Amino acid sequence: MRVLGLDPGLRVTGWGMIEVAGNRLSYLGDGVVRSDETRSLAERLAQLHQGVLAVIAAWTPGEAAVEETFVNKNPESTLKLGQARGAVLLAPALAGLPVAEYSPARVKQSVVGSGRAAKEQVGMMVRTLLPGCQAAADAADALAVAICHAHHRTTAMRVGMGR
Amino acid sequence: MRVLGLDPGLRVTGWGMIEVAGNRLSYLGDGVVRSDETRSLAERLAQLHQGVLAVIAAWTPGEAAVEETFVNKNPESTLKLGQARGAVLLAPALAGLPVAEYSPARVKQSVVGSGRAAKEQVGMMVRTLLPGCQAAADAADALAVAICHAHHRTTAMRVGMGR
Repeated sequence: MRVLGLDPGLRVTGWGMIEVAGNRLSYLGDGVVRSDETRSLAERLAQLHQGVLAVIAAWTPGEAAVEETFVNKNPESTLKLGQARGAVLLAPALAGLPVAEYSPARVKQSVVGSGRAAKEQVGMMVRTLLPGCQAAADAADALAVAICHAHHRTTAMRVGMGR
Repeated sequence: MRVLGLDPGLRVTGWGMIEVAGNRLSYLGDGVVRSDETRSLAERLAQLHQGVLAVIAAWTPGEAAVEETFVNKNPESTLKLGQARGAVLLAPALAGLPVAEYSPARVKQSVVGSGRAAKEQVGMMVRTLLPGCQAAADAADALAVAICHAHHRTTAMRVGMGR
């Protein structure tokens, strides 16, 4: 089962793809989709959406995961992020993938072992947990939420199997 | 030329369609697209997006218009609205339509003649300007931004023609 992690942003949206086989995770790929700041808002949203659709078409994940958004104190930034998030989340939804959401604390807990970990620690642990991965910044955050989803999926499956 | 006006919201998105022929506007249709509150966010965004795509497919507008968003004091509401707005604006963008944005004051000025008009006045003027139209609430707001776009399009065309 392949899991797509997404870290939406209007300027840059990060993505990361992992393979989940029982408890074993392996790294498949990561990257970013950028929007052209000289274009209209609607065109930028379309660029992000189509970029994520292309990633889904290329890697055929079975599930997707995204971090719940940190609500910014600046309402303009929150609105921008919300619009990007809507356009990005729509891609897996239209492709028929379930999209799970996790709080930032849960992602950090899952990857680093502490809900208060620093951003750099998250990136370092992502690269440790996924040999071969060199991802940083937005793509590392996207991989972190994919890892979090893999952990919670496995737990859910175990519960379902009566262990 | 048909113009699609949109009033995005996560629970209810209003739409309105008008025909613009020079200075003459006529009413074609309006309605709302609702999302199912029991579904996941991603599924709700997909419902809104697909509803607006269906309106575009049925009416084949040439241009779309949306009001610039009033940034709510409640950041959670702003985020929700942003996500809905992203999913909704993406529909005309993916269909290749230009999407114009107008401030709420400009829409009111254009429809009522005053940038500080009350919501009820906007609805009343929409129904007066578009004989046959019974729209209220979200659909009336969507028609208002379509009317605003029609006025600004005409002005732009006149300027272009050297008048």
